[in-house]
Amino acid sequence: MTGSLALKGSDTPLDHCDLDIRVRYVECDPMGYLHHARYFEFFELGRTELLRLAGHSYHDMEQQGHFLVVARAQCKFIKPARYDDVLTLTTRIERVTSARIDHSYELKRNGTLLCTGRTTLASVDGEGKLACIPDYLIPLPK
Amino acid sequence: MTGSLALKGSDTPLDHCDLDIRVRYVECDPMGYLHHARYFEFFELGRTELLRLAGHSYHDMEQQGHFLVVARAQCKFIKPARYDDVLTLTTRIERVTSARIDHSYELKRNGTLLCTGRTTLASVDGEGKLACIPDYLIPLPK
Amino acid sequence: MTGSLALKGSDTPLDHCDLDIRVRYVECDPMGYLHHARYFEFFELGRTELLRLAGHSYHDMEQQGHFLVVARAQCKFIKPARYDDVLTLTTRIERVTSARIDHSYELKRNGTLLCTGRTTLASVDGEGKLACIPDYLIPLPK
Amino acid sequence: MTGSLALKGSDTPLDHCDLDIRVRYVECDPMGYLHHARYFEFFELGRTELLRLAGHSYHDMEQQGHFLVVARAQCKFIKPARYDDVLTLTTRIERVTSARIDHSYELKRNGTLLCTGRTTLASVDGEGKLACIPDYLIPLPK
Repeated sequence: MTGSLALKGSDTPLDHCDLDIRVRYVECDPMGYLHHARYFEFFELGRTELLRLAGHSYHDMEQQGHFLVVARAQCKFIKPARYDDVLTLTTRIERVTSARIDHSYELKRNGTLLCTGRTTLASVDGEGKLACIPDYLIPLPK
Repeated sequence: MTGSLALKGSDTPLDHCDLDIRVRYVECDPMGYLHHARYFEFFELGRTELLRLAGHSYHDMEQQGHFLVVARAQCKFIKPARYDDVLTLTTRIERVTSARIDHSYELKRNGTLLCTGRTTLASVDGEGKLACIPDYLIPLPK
Repeated sequence: MTGSLALKGSDTPLDHCDLDIRVRYVECDPMGYLHHARYFEFFELGRTELLRLAGHSYHDMEQQGHFLVVARAQCKFIKPARYDDVLTLTTRIERVTSARIDHSYELKRNGTLLCTGRTTLASVDGEGKLACIPDYLIPLPK
Repeated sequence: MTGSLALKGSDTPLDHCDLDIRVRYVECDPMGYLHHARYFEFFELGRTELLRLAGHSYHDMEQQGHFLVVARAQCKFIKPARYDDVLTLTTRIERVTSARIDHSYELKRNGTLLCTGRTTLASVDGEGKLACIPDYLIPLPK
């Protein structure tokens, strides 16, 4: 299936978004670098924002009993980010199936690539059992 | 009311506990110091441990619909802690009322005082409304 | 001394700033609330932003060997914040002395007060010893 | 090269270690699960502990100008961990070259596998440039 969300109330596909994130002091380690675990928190911000742009809210999804849990995550760290850097995170939908969504990520500072990442989300219900993702996340067949 | 918990199945009062905590790399900031917000996370570990020593579990309390939320917190930072330091946190119950518990904290490294803190917890139900604390947290009158 | 910064290259006093912060998923606890320790991280964001508005950068201050460490922090939690809430943090300078700065904080959601806080920062050098704060942080006498 | 450290002052190879970690409240998200980014923090604890068992300290390494930065990290999440769970993390050295160390990880609760992970560390100097890892981390040829 295609790697995109339909914009709410529209057939326009939405397959990525850019989000600016400023690195916080508390997120940096004694080397002065953004701690490597924090990148995965940033990826989560990118996913939330992409969903929001498509007209949905992960907060509402949870209220409706749909949860997305991270089944796989990976990151390749190329150059370090530092305190107060303004970074641009590009989040892209790579693949959507009935119960899984793959995203890829690129984090840049002024056009310089700092890291690339990838996650697989699984759709689960309130008990943590695999469940179909909400219809509105499944793009229409082309 | 006195500032102590009764040990489960006993009248022996338990008013404090010591907990050793090793400072993690991710908890330290670019100055190389334990970030000041982390001390409040450590205080939470101390409260959990004190409850456990008294024979109870905060995890079970939540399952039973009793929640403790932090209503006030304060800390005076005296000397910095650093990565890999082994610290000793002393958590003390200062006061228990029907819906509130006050704790005080001292964090030391090899006997040197690094910080003192104080919190007030409020007892709430699953909807966040003030509720009486469980009976077993209220010490018997002397 | 007055509780304000002079705007860089100007005598206009700057005594507070407002900053919008969206609550992240990772910042919320199993009750679904913004974890209480995170408020102190938000206060740090407010201080950084106030400094930036005055034309300075905490990042540059550190590069020049001036560090501000938290000597005291306190918070009164009034109502909980939740995932995806957009909060407005008002950071105010209450008092500046040769080596200390007091800030106060108010965090609101749509005008509703969620918490109030207060911190005292101490100015230290690279070895952690008390040092005068940079001249540009000391407001001109009226 | 073999995937093991020599025990300090000995030729005994040390290729893995087990570390018990109790899940903290602040580490869990609104689903009640250990947040996925935290697993990478746990992996860091495992690496530190393995180094300590071999008679070394990452803290001392940094003091001597040797830094290890994470170049790649990945994790497969199998079952969720929850607040207050006591988990056992097995950290294993898979491969050591002149400037890189690969580790693998298994996180279990009472023998049940919760996740597997893998990281590649790069050895850098204080300026972040690739550098040889300290001799004592390179196992003797067999």
